[in-house]
Amino acid sequence: MITPNMHYADLKESYLFYHIAQKTKAYLEENPGTHLYRMGIGDVSLPLCDAAITALHGAVDDQAVKERFHGYMPECGMPSLRHTIAEHYRDRGVAITDEEVFVSSGASDELGDILDLFDRSCSALVIEPAYPAYVDANIMAGRKIVHLPASRDNGFLPAPCEEAKADLLYICSPNNPTGAVFNREQLQAWVDFAKENGSVILFDAAYEAFVEDESLPHSIFEMKGAKECAIEICSLSKTAGFTGTRLGYTVIPEALERNGMHFHDMWVRNRTTKTNGVSYIIQKGGEAIFTPEGQRQIKANIRFYKGNARILMEALDELGIWYCGGKNAPYIWMECPDGMDSWAYFDHLLHNMQIVGTPGEGFGACGEGYFRLSTFGSREDTIVAAKRLLESK
Amino acid sequence: MITPNMHYADLKESYLFYHIAQKTKAYLEENPGTHLYRMGIGDVSLPLCDAAITALHGAVDDQAVKERFHGYMPECGMPSLRHTIAEHYRDRGVAITDEEVFVSSGASDELGDILDLFDRSCSALVIEPAYPAYVDANIMAGRKIVHLPASRDNGFLPAPCEEAKADLLYICSPNNPTGAVFNREQLQAWVDFAKENGSVILFDAAYEAFVEDESLPHSIFEMKGAKECAIEICSLSKTAGFTGTRLGYTVIPEALERNGMHFHDMWVRNRTTKTNGVSYIIQKGGEAIFTPEGQRQIKANIRFYKGNARILMEALDELGIWYCGGKNAPYIWMECPDGMDSWAYFDHLLHNMQIVGTPGEGFGACGEGYFRLSTFGSREDTIVAAKRLLESK
Repeated sequence: MITPNMHYADLKESYLFYHIAQKTKAYLEENPGTHLYRMGIGDVSLPLCDAAITALHGAVDDQAVKERFHGYMPECGMPSLRHTIAEHYRDRGVAITDEEVFVSSGASDELGDILDLFDRSCSALVIEPAYPAYVDANIMAGRKIVHLPASRDNGFLPAPCEEAKADLLYICSPNNPTGAVFNREQLQAWVDFAKENGSVILFDAAYEAFVEDESLPHSIFEMKGAKECAIEICSLSKTAGFTGTRLGYTVIPEALERNGMHFHDMWVRNRTTKTNGVSYIIQKGGEAIFTPEGQRQIKANIRFYKGNARILMEALDELGIWYCGGKNAPYIWMECPDGMDSWAYFDHLLHNMQIVGTPGEGFGACGEGYFRLSTFGSREDTIVAAKRLLESK
Repeated sequence: MITPNMHYADLKESYLFYHIAQKTKAYLEENPGTHLYRMGIGDVSLPLCDAAITALHGAVDDQAVKERFHGYMPECGMPSLRHTIAEHYRDRGVAITDEEVFVSSGASDELGDILDLFDRSCSALVIEPAYPAYVDANIMAGRKIVHLPASRDNGFLPAPCEEAKADLLYICSPNNPTGAVFNREQLQAWVDFAKENGSVILFDAAYEAFVEDESLPHSIFEMKGAKECAIEICSLSKTAGFTGTRLGYTVIPEALERNGMHFHDMWVRNRTTKTNGVSYIIQKGGEAIFTPEGQRQIKANIRFYKGNARILMEALDELGIWYCGGKNAPYIWMECPDGMDSWAYFDHLLHNMQIVGTPGEGFGACGEGYFRLSTFGSREDTIVAAKRLLESK
């Protein structure tokens, strides 16, 4: 008799965003036709930029004619795209090779798949509040999870410490959900800590494009020694609105090895065995993002979302509510007013202001009492949401 | 110190198709400008059908405007596509629900990912010759592999037996590489065997669209009791030329459970944790394949490849060389002439006839002495390759 992976039985019953969707659905069934101001799940609202659209159409045209048709793609990514992404790093002073870049279907997919490189006995550090999939993907593998709670006292940016020792260290900066960003000294401390302990950092850089303060790092490879202890996972989802189009990339330095095994080479083997590469059409769309035109266009979109962030931050300032994020990140992490717990505040916003946000408790126990607002909504919705928050004063 | 997944060290050094690519590259470096007749890796040569192209362009247009833009997709697949695929089954008399269909990025990706549902202690039966990734994906997980050699004596379609007992049973029919197809009685015997032993069959149906003999099954769910013991993994790669466009689907019956765990529900949880769904654009392209127009167009393409198969089969018949496949499958599995071993025959064909095929040994030890020809090449190449084979008589 086959044995299922019984670790799935250890998962908590309901997934945060599923739970939000259920509550929202129930509200709409009771109040049909109501317009909701959706600042919950971090989905974008602006369409793809023109450069991507033109490239996607061009790639579809290629697939229509025998002479330009593309069959199986190289499993680790189209060489021209790997080169373009590596150049994007090199232009910012981070020396990586084309071969260190792997094209992926997005950060979510990659964060799940990449765990295959590590033994199941490894422990995983999750700095909470955190993206719930970090925890769930490791529970599925039966790994021990070390929870390190962050708090307002350390600006939700904890320093490494004895309790943070683990084999795999998840670091997400700019952070989801808090929007907090590690500065260079803080991130260097985590790199040094990983090196001291032989750990590997999984650096989730999905929001790096939102960093505007020039002193803050975009990539962990800006830190000294990171190539010997880190993997960086990136995404075009938020950078370029690819949430439903799906493309990302991962950097695994050739220098990263433990116990004589090179993670870079292992990942090549993993991809060539377990995938046939990412869709040609989508890779061509992604490539356009890295052209000067594409960069100009996505930066305009990012500025738009930052406009939303300013509107919400001004409202919170006026209300005297503590928050972090918003400036160098697309998320605002606010304290729930009047000592409300985060699901109570969720219900309060939904029922009284028709605003859908994300309860902090869904990102770990230490997120209780906090609430995440996304800045990816439309301008009109953001303005109304800010107005309703202010009126509730 | 973090421990890598040391099972990667147990993988054999080189992957079959990589090895072929290296040998081919070396030949072209010695003989620049030579045209090669590529009947090796099973990549298609015809472009996507018009129905898919129109749908892909339409989906790209949707991504360009705010009103029709699609962000995060449902992780298990677009409901309309799941419905369309389930209808496709139901039209053929196989009763599955929409929710039992999961949209994937293709069979390769899915065959790698789906192993997460099973405990690492499970053993895996691989009927050889076999697609090399079946073995490698299980070596990466540290699983015990039970090799069941097929042979010309059983038409490369072995029956279940004591030596075939394992927890996971890989069955690929029409088979890659042999092109052999289990008939209803033979496949029912495997289903009965799986049920007796509490095993789960992973049924690789990537080539089902090539079955033309009406008595042969397309889906394992045509067999009695299969819903309690099988998962079916399908692909548009060969059916519709999606090798580089990437789309597939997987059927996990709700009735499939072991030890109180429902694999269907586990897979929902896996997908919602480890993916954000397949690209909207690609799903729309795939959906067009299931329209009457799309079906007509892909069937014309399949008939074209079957024309290639006939040309090669006629040459082999004339040469008096034993083979199987070709009729209900896109692969022809031939005996190497003159007692040559399969890599020697590979070199012989490459150097003397400029034909690239796939050595049988790459699919397992019992493939030694055999050779795989793909029928996915161009008509012109196939005609010349057949002519050269005949001239070598």
